[in-house]
Amino acid sequence: MPQFFPEVKMVKFEGPKSRDPLAFKHYDAGEKVLGKTMADHLRFSVCYWHTFKGLGSDPFGPGTIIRKYNNSSDPMTVAEMTLWAAFEFFAKLGVDYWCFHDRDIAPEGGTLAESNKNLDRIVKLARKLQRDTGIKPLWGTANLFSNRRYMGGAATNPSPAVFAYAAAQVKKAMEVTQELGGAGYVFWGGREGYDTLLNTDMGRELDHLGAFLHMAVDYKKKIGFRGQFYIEPKPKEPTKHQYDSDAGACFAFLQKYDLVDHFKLNIEANHGTLAGHTFQHELEFCVANGILGSVDANRGDLLVGWDTDQFPTDLYDCTLGLYTLLQGGGFRTGGLNFDAKVRRQSIDPVDLFHAHIGGMDTFARALKIAARMIKDGKFARFVSQRYAAWDTAFGRKIAAGKATFAEMEKYTLTQGEPRIQSGRQEMLENMLNAYIS
Amino acid sequence: MPQFFPEVKMVKFEGPKSRDPLAFKHYDAGEKVLGKTMADHLRFSVCYWHTFKGLGSDPFGPGTIIRKYNNSSDPMTVAEMTLWAAFEFFAKLGVDYWCFHDRDIAPEGGTLAESNKNLDRIVKLARKLQRDTGIKPLWGTANLFSNRRYMGGAATNPSPAVFAYAAAQVKKAMEVTQELGGAGYVFWGGREGYDTLLNTDMGRELDHLGAFLHMAVDYKKKIGFRGQFYIEPKPKEPTKHQYDSDAGACFAFLQKYDLVDHFKLNIEANHGTLAGHTFQHELEFCVANGILGSVDANRGDLLVGWDTDQFPTDLYDCTLGLYTLLQGGGFRTGGLNFDAKVRRQSIDPVDLFHAHIGGMDTFARALKIAARMIKDGKFARFVSQRYAAWDTAFGRKIAAGKATFAEMEKYTLTQGEPRIQSGRQEMLENMLNAYIS
Amino acid sequence: MPQFFPEVKMVKFEGPKSRDPLAFKHYDAGEKVLGKTMADHLRFSVCYWHTFKGLGSDPFGPGTIIRKYNNSSDPMTVAEMTLWAAFEFFAKLGVDYWCFHDRDIAPEGGTLAESNKNLDRIVKLARKLQRDTGIKPLWGTANLFSNRRYMGGAATNPSPAVFAYAAAQVKKAMEVTQELGGAGYVFWGGREGYDTLLNTDMGRELDHLGAFLHMAVDYKKKIGFRGQFYIEPKPKEPTKHQYDSDAGACFAFLQKYDLVDHFKLNIEANHGTLAGHTFQHELEFCVANGILGSVDANRGDLLVGWDTDQFPTDLYDCTLGLYTLLQGGGFRTGGLNFDAKVRRQSIDPVDLFHAHIGGMDTFARALKIAARMIKDGKFARFVSQRYAAWDTAFGRKIAAGKATFAEMEKYTLTQGEPRIQSGRQEMLENMLNAYIS
Amino acid sequence: MPQFFPEVKMVKFEGPKSRDPLAFKHYDAGEKVLGKTMADHLRFSVCYWHTFKGLGSDPFGPGTIIRKYNNSSDPMTVAEMTLWAAFEFFAKLGVDYWCFHDRDIAPEGGTLAESNKNLDRIVKLARKLQRDTGIKPLWGTANLFSNRRYMGGAATNPSPAVFAYAAAQVKKAMEVTQELGGAGYVFWGGREGYDTLLNTDMGRELDHLGAFLHMAVDYKKKIGFRGQFYIEPKPKEPTKHQYDSDAGACFAFLQKYDLVDHFKLNIEANHGTLAGHTFQHELEFCVANGILGSVDANRGDLLVGWDTDQFPTDLYDCTLGLYTLLQGGGFRTGGLNFDAKVRRQSIDPVDLFHAHIGGMDTFARALKIAARMIKDGKFARFVSQRYAAWDTAFGRKIAAGKATFAEMEKYTLTQGEPRIQSGRQEMLENMLNAYIS
Repeated sequence: MPQFFPEVKMVKFEGPKSRDPLAFKHYDAGEKVLGKTMADHLRFSVCYWHTFKGLGSDPFGPGTIIRKYNNSSDPMTVAEMTLWAAFEFFAKLGVDYWCFHDRDIAPEGGTLAESNKNLDRIVKLARKLQRDTGIKPLWGTANLFSNRRYMGGAATNPSPAVFAYAAAQVKKAMEVTQELGGAGYVFWGGREGYDTLLNTDMGRELDHLGAFLHMAVDYKKKIGFRGQFYIEPKPKEPTKHQYDSDAGACFAFLQKYDLVDHFKLNIEANHGTLAGHTFQHELEFCVANGILGSVDANRGDLLVGWDTDQFPTDLYDCTLGLYTLLQGGGFRTGGLNFDAKVRRQSIDPVDLFHAHIGGMDTFARALKIAARMIKDGKFARFVSQRYAAWDTAFGRKIAAGKATFAEMEKYTLTQGEPRIQSGRQEMLENMLNAYIS
Repeated sequence: MPQFFPEVKMVKFEGPKSRDPLAFKHYDAGEKVLGKTMADHLRFSVCYWHTFKGLGSDPFGPGTIIRKYNNSSDPMTVAEMTLWAAFEFFAKLGVDYWCFHDRDIAPEGGTLAESNKNLDRIVKLARKLQRDTGIKPLWGTANLFSNRRYMGGAATNPSPAVFAYAAAQVKKAMEVTQELGGAGYVFWGGREGYDTLLNTDMGRELDHLGAFLHMAVDYKKKIGFRGQFYIEPKPKEPTKHQYDSDAGACFAFLQKYDLVDHFKLNIEANHGTLAGHTFQHELEFCVANGILGSVDANRGDLLVGWDTDQFPTDLYDCTLGLYTLLQGGGFRTGGLNFDAKVRRQSIDPVDLFHAHIGGMDTFARALKIAARMIKDGKFARFVSQRYAAWDTAFGRKIAAGKATFAEMEKYTLTQGEPRIQSGRQEMLENMLNAYIS
Repeated sequence: MPQFFPEVKMVKFEGPKSRDPLAFKHYDAGEKVLGKTMADHLRFSVCYWHTFKGLGSDPFGPGTIIRKYNNSSDPMTVAEMTLWAAFEFFAKLGVDYWCFHDRDIAPEGGTLAESNKNLDRIVKLARKLQRDTGIKPLWGTANLFSNRRYMGGAATNPSPAVFAYAAAQVKKAMEVTQELGGAGYVFWGGREGYDTLLNTDMGRELDHLGAFLHMAVDYKKKIGFRGQFYIEPKPKEPTKHQYDSDAGACFAFLQKYDLVDHFKLNIEANHGTLAGHTFQHELEFCVANGILGSVDANRGDLLVGWDTDQFPTDLYDCTLGLYTLLQGGGFRTGGLNFDAKVRRQSIDPVDLFHAHIGGMDTFARALKIAARMIKDGKFARFVSQRYAAWDTAFGRKIAAGKATFAEMEKYTLTQGEPRIQSGRQEMLENMLNAYIS
Repeated sequence: MPQFFPEVKMVKFEGPKSRDPLAFKHYDAGEKVLGKTMADHLRFSVCYWHTFKGLGSDPFGPGTIIRKYNNSSDPMTVAEMTLWAAFEFFAKLGVDYWCFHDRDIAPEGGTLAESNKNLDRIVKLARKLQRDTGIKPLWGTANLFSNRRYMGGAATNPSPAVFAYAAAQVKKAMEVTQELGGAGYVFWGGREGYDTLLNTDMGRELDHLGAFLHMAVDYKKKIGFRGQFYIEPKPKEPTKHQYDSDAGACFAFLQKYDLVDHFKLNIEANHGTLAGHTFQHELEFCVANGILGSVDANRGDLLVGWDTDQFPTDLYDCTLGLYTLLQGGGFRTGGLNFDAKVRRQSIDPVDLFHAHIGGMDTFARALKIAARMIKDGKFARFVSQRYAAWDTAFGRKIAAGKATFAEMEKYTLTQGEPRIQSGRQEMLENMLNAYIS
């Protein structure tokens, strides 16, 4: 096979002093941090859609990026070349996982049967490439938002025929993910929402979405797929409103439709900020409610209002995110999938390497920082001391739900004004800065 | 008693052609719309905090508004004069309801006992004024956010002593609301959230909030209070993040802590928009999930990022909100409480009348528009036709949860590409405009 | 020629009671308002890019819309069919103007020479169709943002060869606009800005932009083009930051580079709101500074953060915009160009009619409302009374720049605390609502 | 005099390994960086309003902070005690500058004469304390936004009497600033804008603001005040719209009213982000246009929509800001004034030290990073290479304004498609991260 990235060799760890922009300065896959290797903590995954199928188009212009593997008029040849390129990239970068939509890896045919056939042919090649490299899917998924049939939603479409099409597509995508040994399967409802309530029956649509996910759970059992199911929150874009708007909305939905046992959340940094929450907030909410699954690692631009899907390079966000993640027990089935794309002007193949190396190095550095924060225990001690009075008999009784308003009133009448203490936010922020290095 | 608003007489309905800015042009309390009087549909309430206690302060300056009833150095005299003024205002405006925080109507004393005593004295006067006028509380509530003791939260405070104080305050506020015949009781957790996760144990705080609300439910049963409990979503301000950030987050919380049977939501327009949702969206979400309770009627400015609490005058928002509300069955215990304040430059007493008359007229007009939309049935028909295929045997089977992915695949392989139909958003928006008049 | 919109006949004015969704209910082209016909006031224009070239693509999916005029594999045939369709549409709708980019009407060729040749061929057809219908360009422009060569800007590109290409394209587009009798020419610098300052020399880029516009002014003189030049503000998207971010930034730029005499502004509603300003604000700023030129009429969604380019249907925004415009003297060379697109689900040709009819009717209704507001003079009187003290000798002296700080101090020491008056915002908002009908 | 901060000694530089939270880890005043001491580069200033007068109030509650120096019922005693506390704080922190509003340091009296007298008395004490410590004002200013008389603006008020009052206040504040040896004087038009255009004459108000600033320039000459004048942009809050909305709007205004020679800009980070721009953007814009003056150093929270005025701790923002500042030649008369406040829960005096130490250390660290970036020259080289073609004869001719559209077309017809190059944003962001340490 031709090399698609001949200008880049295997990306190696060379340490912080390396001047090679194509070497890792912080990510050393085998280095142990808090008793586990970096690779096991971070479980990096490359996404297929942006990295290999994305060509720099935006609402004001078509693609700017020209790739050799697109140099054929036959879609299946392009699909195969792209897959070869992808595995060359994965291997050179040294990641263990990849993520894909069904339509990323194989072109949609004129009929579902044809699309499935295309998929089967590509999956066969993917299996070979996976065997050769040891790389597996972190998760697979179905693209239920690009084709015009899904313009009004997939599981929440006004037409049950579209619902059926989506179900058929998920069925196949789940089978393919299973066949490739995927550790999970993601549902992102890109068009499950509305543009105007004037033409929408929200209650009915939510019920249909519940039914769809139950059918997925049933099918998963039927075929014995052991991967974890995730739903992925996002508030808007492409819809004006998406039902899975944030972790809170997803948790409300999962509870109402009795799906909590079957789904965890796939948190994307940029989706959180579009919903008005920090990346860490969304993770913390998931940890507090036992629904943290996986992460789509990227970064938004809070001064623009759309999903910029930039590569994660902010040490603060990554450190705080990993700090919450590690305290929540770390990843089980999930990992850090770079759902990020190079900028439209970053047209060279080498830019893909810069981008991923930057993301991996940032998270590796953040992991070491978060690990130091945890080992030192300063933040944890501060927090536990702040809540210390809840560990007294009085506090424990309340927390256990055994106290009454009458007792509270009596206590207050006797004890008078509570003593209050500084929240010490500035000192804590300084402490955090002392760890950033 | 002195008159506090001598320049304004009883506000009367004079019809759309009236040139009197202090007359209703649309709100005719006894007019029947869809079989009920306007007053029964809209259940207008005046809020005590903004309208009588608000004096125009903002983060860059103290109050600008001078009121005669504040013209005493004795806080209890001020409190009594204010109450007289308030009931004069309620009566002249012709509303049936008012809403209050404990600390709005009576000043906080040096101790809880003193505060309670102050409250008792004022409540006695309030009962008299209520008897004289027939006006009652739509709901009462406790202010658990202004006093410095609540700076780190009330039910979610790091100190159980503060939790106890808050509980004691709610106990009393609930008793007072019961005594005054209030139709409901609201929990707005203004400081139940965090400024930084560096000093916060979110999971613990959420558990405490759950315990607090269960204690409230227990106490409600104990005293036989029959009013409806509401929680009120808001995403932020004064906190960086409030746990009850939107209707979705509230519904997730209520389900997790098994409180759905005891609480409905009090939706505030401006809180919805701060969370990135339209007023109608938040109402629709509540209707779809059976948790719609009451409404804080106001309007935000989407180009600024804080709670402006302006009076509702946008016919589109009010019409669409009422359209959803009416389709959801209308208010049972709730109503439209004007949680709105005059602008800082609106310093005259008459500005309070302009503001409320404008809000009431806007909702009255919106009610008549929404009623016409419902009677004509054009929108409802469009929506039901759009989803018509879900009423076939095929659709019903799916919606009932009796279909499988295998059947869906088979259907799709047989039927081929689904037919898609225009969402007709522009036509529907034109139709809406034709109703706005 | 084939009919492309056979399902729609000439759109007629039928008055507010018409039940035909494809008739005007408010726009009656010849009706006189404030002494001028509606058509002369509003100068409606249809944009070519969204209405004929837009097919519903968004960042998450390709087009959904299938048009008969695209039914050929030859780009020039498509271009000609599209132009026939466009003029059929213009004529049926009854507008007098259209707007276009060079690359909308004729496909880009392999070289500039080829592109120009394509353009010439289409312009010939356009002249014929213009002659047949009497419709002319409100303005023309060059697309300097879609082609990958412009990914780093056109006039602000790091490469002078790209600058040169852009200049050559503008040269031709200006010639074509002149040839078609266009009333103006617009510069929208879609990519004149940056994604990161790390690779950008802002000062240098601004200087180049200044040079570019001066070259345009020179060329305009050379060929005797009499149309008005406009620049169009937008803060971001596709760039992270666009230099012409709002009316203020444009006015600063025009002054610095001594271009004020040659340019006015083309204000787009949705661009204003993306910059944090209301539509009316941007117009008012232009009127106050003598730089109001033309309007891109559309509507954004303030709860999402990108340019939704929806059709204008909000009576408040349109009324207030026209109120400011009329007080500023109305359009001279400019007009209302619908830079708006049907939603991705509005896939039928008839949706284009619904959309434009809605926009035209909304502005027609807004025009009549604004005219009544002006005739009644209530708002103008309120404002002039509010500032009345500036019409005294004291006020006039200050405003004339003839007073000193010392005099001001003396006046204040003598006069004491100034009397302040209510801003009456709520009453004014009620007054506005009384006009909305 | 009593000590107000007895728990804190002089804050010393102890280096990065110090474990004392009340020592500098990075700020070593005398350390030379790029040929100047840190103190001379950064010119730190403490603001009087937040740090000594701010007590933690927010729109939902009064102050939470209790300070010993407020422990008197006599306002002038409080004012004096506060000044003693302030200079103790300045000295312990080791800053050279402070900033103040007239009404921060001395209470407003019943009349202007009384207010001025109060001011004179306090200024006398300030002069003594300045002599004792060597600390001087970076700038002074007048509070023209808190008093109710300014509710409708100061220089843009509908009443010329309010204009006169504001002028008298600025006259005195300028005199006082001169007397104290202040290096500058700031105009922040907190209420110079509008809440609704329905009651506003924007053009007239802008003209009055122009007249006001010209009167200030005249008075400055008259008294021989040599400090630099600054205007400070902010888009909104407390107004809905402030005329000086961002650096662009200010530059437009200064040019229109012929004030560019007399004013520079005081850029506040949080104001920039509220306007939708990064801190670095606003600085870069000022450098590009020769109007950079001084900096209000703080940090906003981009997920909330108001001015949070947090202490600056983000290394990215501070580094990029200083990188631009240093390339623009650094401060002449301006400096870094901490216009920042401790959080409402940070109630202890020591929190003020944590906050300022954190801010100073962050900027010191950022200075060293920015200096390394400049010394290494990698970013500058990348940028100059990216624009290298503008240094050829062809590029220089265009930039000099000597080229024509016809030449550009000829060049393009001859040369064909320009070569484009990657913007390398990801590589540059990785490079930046390598400097952050």
